[in-house]
Amino acid sequence: VELELIDWLRQELPQHADVLLGPGDDAAVLRLAPSPACVVTVDLLTEGVDFLLDEVDPARIGRKALAVNLSDLAAMAAEPLAAVVALALPEEGGMQLARQLYAGMLPLAQQYGVSIIGGDTNRWQGSLVLSITALGRPTVAGPLRRSGAQPGDEILVTGSLGGSILGRHFDFEPRVAEALILNSRYQLHAGIDLSDGLSTDLAHLVQESNCGALLWSEQIPIAAAARQLAVQHDDGCSALEHALHDGEDFELLLAVAPHEAQRILDEKPVEVPLTRIGVFTAAPGLWIQDHTGQHPLESKGWEH
Amino acid sequence: VELELIDWLRQELPQHADVLLGPGDDAAVLRLAPSPACVVTVDLLTEGVDFLLDEVDPARIGRKALAVNLSDLAAMAAEPLAAVVALALPEEGGMQLARQLYAGMLPLAQQYGVSIIGGDTNRWQGSLVLSITALGRPTVAGPLRRSGAQPGDEILVTGSLGGSILGRHFDFEPRVAEALILNSRYQLHAGIDLSDGLSTDLAHLVQESNCGALLWSEQIPIAAAARQLAVQHDDGCSALEHALHDGEDFELLLAVAPHEAQRILDEKPVEVPLTRIGVFTAAPGLWIQDHTGQHPLESKGWEH
Repeated sequence: VELELIDWLRQELPQHADVLLGPGDDAAVLRLAPSPACVVTVDLLTEGVDFLLDEVDPARIGRKALAVNLSDLAAMAAEPLAAVVALALPEEGGMQLARQLYAGMLPLAQQYGVSIIGGDTNRWQGSLVLSITALGRPTVAGPLRRSGAQPGDEILVTGSLGGSILGRHFDFEPRVAEALILNSRYQLHAGIDLSDGLSTDLAHLVQESNCGALLWSEQIPIAAAARQLAVQHDDGCSALEHALHDGEDFELLLAVAPHEAQRILDEKPVEVPLTRIGVFTAAPGLWIQDHTGQHPLESKGWEH
Repeated sequence: VELELIDWLRQELPQHADVLLGPGDDAAVLRLAPSPACVVTVDLLTEGVDFLLDEVDPARIGRKALAVNLSDLAAMAAEPLAAVVALALPEEGGMQLARQLYAGMLPLAQQYGVSIIGGDTNRWQGSLVLSITALGRPTVAGPLRRSGAQPGDEILVTGSLGGSILGRHFDFEPRVAEALILNSRYQLHAGIDLSDGLSTDLAHLVQESNCGALLWSEQIPIAAAARQLAVQHDDGCSALEHALHDGEDFELLLAVAPHEAQRILDEKPVEVPLTRIGVFTAAPGLWIQDHTGQHPLESKGWEH
């Protein structure tokens, strides 16, 4: 499988100037100048947990496997440069499946200027596993971390939340462009991408920042899919609950000082809607405020 | 699993000065100065193909998963810096297994100054899959490629070959130190690590170098394990055949001009034995010479 794939990829893949050595050797070589810093992230997707091969076009699976990595780079406000792709393919139809996965991955890679510089393609008795490692470089403002949120900072979020299970968890747009623009033009204190769910990822961020957070329930941007789920399904979850706890929104959550948040909201530097959904607090813990008052907010999202 | 593991790893892992940001954020940040070049390799190991969990201590599996990557970096003569570790763990006993895998990985990481800077740890219904991506930096001599062998160059190999299935494929020493010393003190034209078997990896190298190669059968360093296999097993393979075709030796094969090869053999700059086993030829193809003459050499190693 592998040699064939490498030959095919060498033809298919545009290699950027920063790729000093692409697929086909024992390792690839990437040039990181002018910054000597390399931002690295890895995500592994498995059959049955992240997708069902029976139900989904493999191209969407391949796209997602790369997109979740780009979302992680966006969360660091890093410019994506390259990726390596490791596949555990089922014995039966492995090569065709690999091509289908790449068919979904390559347009996204091209869109974001990501070179696929290497990989490892194996077959085995088990089901499909994809593990992609993506490399990027920080902007001059430096990487955006989880740990910089300060009490009084406001919580901004891109897009709308909840119900991604209806399809958006495959076809979401990683917020790379937004992160790069926002981090280079404004002072962002901290950031994270919403992969495990707003309530869970916000908990991660406040833990790293040693603070707490209060969400304003009426300000949460609820996705149409979250409303749809609340109506369709009989699980007793409201649209707001879907927006608070559903995983895989892959939107950006940012901590920004109030005056800077106001400047962002006024200047609208990105096309995607940005919403102010709460504030960081000195007191630890997560809280949510609705018309009846403030209540503790449980983290009910995805825990690995 | 993941948060617990990250907490544990943060305590266990020595973080080097080049690690600007370790595990726990959306991505890690590695500093690559003084060279802006980053050497990247990924290897994925699966239950049933690369190991059998029933038969092998998971610590040896964890060690191997990192060691194969270090061997790839050695093949590029790159100094290992960091790695990210993606695990697909079986539901049952996943966390304990992860700790055992890391228990084998961490001493090797420490030995070679490799920081584990990130990972993704998931559980699923399937068997164990490990995918490690390793990052390194080239020496001032630049990365050692597969494509530089010239007709007339001699073929040097480290260690002895064959029979790794008896245990060495888990416990081999990646030839990192040897590669760094040899590539910084001598002019090496090309290199590869022997993962698929001498006859197969040599074929890869001559293909990239647009040349051929002739091996001298009496010079091939045959491992004791290859002799043991030839005696024990009734597959009709001689010890030489095991040395020629068995996979996972993880020794280095180098292309070096004759005078430089002589200098290396005279000066013995590394402890591991180095053997001159043949020459590269202008005519394509692989050949082997024994006391009866020259014969075509088939690539019978592992093909992905």
